[in-house]
Amino acid sequence: MADYVKMWKDLGMDLENHDLLCQVLPTAVGDVFLTQENRPAAMDFWDLVISEVHGIRPAELIEEQKKGRKVFGTFCVYVPDEVIIAADGIVTGLCGGSQFWVPGGEAVLPKSTCPLVKASVGARLGRTCPFFRIADMYVGETTCDGKKKAYEILGEDVPMYVMDVPQMKREKDTLKWKGEIEEFAQKVEEFTGNKVTPEKLGEAIHIVNEKRRALARVYECRKSECLPISGRDALLMMQISFFDDPARCAQMCNRLADELEQRIKDGVSVVPAGTKRILVTGTPLAVPNWKLHNIIETSGAAVVCEEMCTGTRYFENLVSEDGDTLDEQFMDLSRRYMKTNCACFTPNRGRIDDILRMAKEYHADGVIDCSLKFCCLYDTEKYTVSRALKEAGVPVLSIETDYTDADAEQLRTRIGAFVEMLNG
Amino acid sequence: MADYVKMWKDLGMDLENHDLLCQVLPTAVGDVFLTQENRPAAMDFWDLVISEVHGIRPAELIEEQKKGRKVFGTFCVYVPDEVIIAADGIVTGLCGGSQFWVPGGEAVLPKSTCPLVKASVGARLGRTCPFFRIADMYVGETTCDGKKKAYEILGEDVPMYVMDVPQMKREKDTLKWKGEIEEFAQKVEEFTGNKVTPEKLGEAIHIVNEKRRALARVYECRKSECLPISGRDALLMMQISFFDDPARCAQMCNRLADELEQRIKDGVSVVPAGTKRILVTGTPLAVPNWKLHNIIETSGAAVVCEEMCTGTRYFENLVSEDGDTLDEQFMDLSRRYMKTNCACFTPNRGRIDDILRMAKEYHADGVIDCSLKFCCLYDTEKYTVSRALKEAGVPVLSIETDYTDADAEQLRTRIGAFVEMLNG
Repeated sequence: MADYVKMWKDLGMDLENHDLLCQVLPTAVGDVFLTQENRPAAMDFWDLVISEVHGIRPAELIEEQKKGRKVFGTFCVYVPDEVIIAADGIVTGLCGGSQFWVPGGEAVLPKSTCPLVKASVGARLGRTCPFFRIADMYVGETTCDGKKKAYEILGEDVPMYVMDVPQMKREKDTLKWKGEIEEFAQKVEEFTGNKVTPEKLGEAIHIVNEKRRALARVYECRKSECLPISGRDALLMMQISFFDDPARCAQMCNRLADELEQRIKDGVSVVPAGTKRILVTGTPLAVPNWKLHNIIETSGAAVVCEEMCTGTRYFENLVSEDGDTLDEQFMDLSRRYMKTNCACFTPNRGRIDDILRMAKEYHADGVIDCSLKFCCLYDTEKYTVSRALKEAGVPVLSIETDYTDADAEQLRTRIGAFVEMLNG
Repeated sequence: MADYVKMWKDLGMDLENHDLLCQVLPTAVGDVFLTQENRPAAMDFWDLVISEVHGIRPAELIEEQKKGRKVFGTFCVYVPDEVIIAADGIVTGLCGGSQFWVPGGEAVLPKSTCPLVKASVGARLGRTCPFFRIADMYVGETTCDGKKKAYEILGEDVPMYVMDVPQMKREKDTLKWKGEIEEFAQKVEEFTGNKVTPEKLGEAIHIVNEKRRALARVYECRKSECLPISGRDALLMMQISFFDDPARCAQMCNRLADELEQRIKDGVSVVPAGTKRILVTGTPLAVPNWKLHNIIETSGAAVVCEEMCTGTRYFENLVSEDGDTLDEQFMDLSRRYMKTNCACFTPNRGRIDDILRMAKEYHADGVIDCSLKFCCLYDTEKYTVSRALKEAGVPVLSIETDYTDADAEQLRTRIGAFVEMLNG
């Protein structure tokens, strides 16, 4: 760790406060991950990364910046990484998942803002996250009121570019989104000084597709009745994938998938036969938000899938690799991203269909639909999600939570009762 | 009132519950409006309308429906009434401003939704508002997460059309909004069976502009140091204008403006000289939400302007009347509506400029920036609004409230202290 202190200092971080954050993390990692038995050996990569999450990857990013590459920080699965990669830029996720950052966000945002937005703003303003310090440009999007308005405040502090995501999914909206991607590409070209050519974009599309395929392979293994990986471990892999180099991410996920596929052949499961399988749906779980998975999996059930941005919404659907011109490629990108069923769209029947399909594919015994407090979009959609699942005969528990520990006992009681009901 | 019972019954309303609502309103009207001294005589029109708010106008709408005209219910100043009027349709506002409807909304929406959205949904589902029963079609827009998702639930019960408002204000967004208006016109044509011609649209643009000019005349009078009308009365006029026939609205507002202009000449003010003048800014105040104005004006100050949807955002900026073709007219409409500075846009510097300008134009001694609870957009913008006002040396009080009476005393204390500070 000592090696990183100089780096953090050079990044203008608040070392004293950052130390407090660094002190908490190892205990959390120990409690949530290292207590598990029979973990896949390939989790060693993510254990290492998370143990020095503010060190290893930030140091790599700074090395690349020294070579002249630009780092783009993003908050949403709607920002097309492909465009950035095509211009030799680097993408890193910037979502904050710790209560540690919330008070800093509340200094400038209403308390009734979702914790993810408050934590992200707090991480930046409090100078306690290296990723927020390293990013040369932030790329936002208009997917929710909270982020949309928070970007205005962030934009006073950093170069901020916002993409206008359509709120509906008609053909003209796909065209509009294509236009936004095209305009973003111009911005990225200007900012990096590198041209986005059809060849470069084609390569970038392939790189990100490969990452999606690798993540999907791991998720495919979670469909098996013989469950080779815990929900916590799969979540950690997913969370880190937002920060990692995409090619290495694909390599590591494929390495993990190799092991998981072998485990399934060998009948190696991380849980006893008959353990109830939970599909979790809703708002993203940013690092180090492991609360929900930890409670579920220490209540006798197993999480088998996340219908979340930190989950299926990140890797489902590939971009066509057939486009030869930028025009075709931008349209291919738009088509793929517009397939992602975020609650920001209206109507959003596609998400209900996704959830029903995933409940089947992953052989879920029950669904826990969880949204972050004050996330109006996912919170409102709970009504239709819950109704559709009930109609399909799938038990569902709707919950709302934040980053504090205040509701942990209450959640444990409710989730425990839900699992008991499933077992009954 | 007896005459309306049959009408309400025919509308399928819940008469028993509706009676409860009808019992409360006269007291509220008496307390807020009739206790005022020296009111403009022309307020008689609005006193009459509000005294039978669920009777007079609904009966007119039903008469027009019998002649084959269609009634369109709207929730937002972004829906272009002109297009509906051009197709011989009628527009009526549908926003709910009473706590009475909130529990009904909470049955299907999260509690942490803004009271305006909850009340609107509750008014429809509870069958206690004739306007919600009469409307043949509801027209929504994607101006906030709360409404956007609530429309999906409303849409299960009524024909619902949603327009996608861009979230930014670049030239391409004005073009996009023009496209939305054009598509909406096609929908209105289909639904009414009437063609929108350049002549008809030209007339409609003129009608709505005349209404805007008349409302602006009343507001112009409020700029006078000799204040000829209370904020409560101006608010009532504004609120009813969303429900009224636009030509009659213009006529009545002009009649009121005539009287107010004479009052100014005669030096007739509704408040003693030196009464502190308050500009209120923020979220709309739907009928019968008079809480804020009532507290301010019974705390020794006067409201001189509302930078709100129920205020300047409704009438500022005219549509060009020079367009000869539908294409030109749709673009003229788009340009006018895109000038309205709702907090749904990012960035939204225009709203700050509006507020600073209005504070000057209306000679405001202070600003009360008020948002409805859980309105993420206006709540987040408070930060920049407040900072800009402080920089300009204008005292500002930021508050958040809902439709209950629970915070009335606390608000009274805070607003009283603010007024005292201004007087100090």
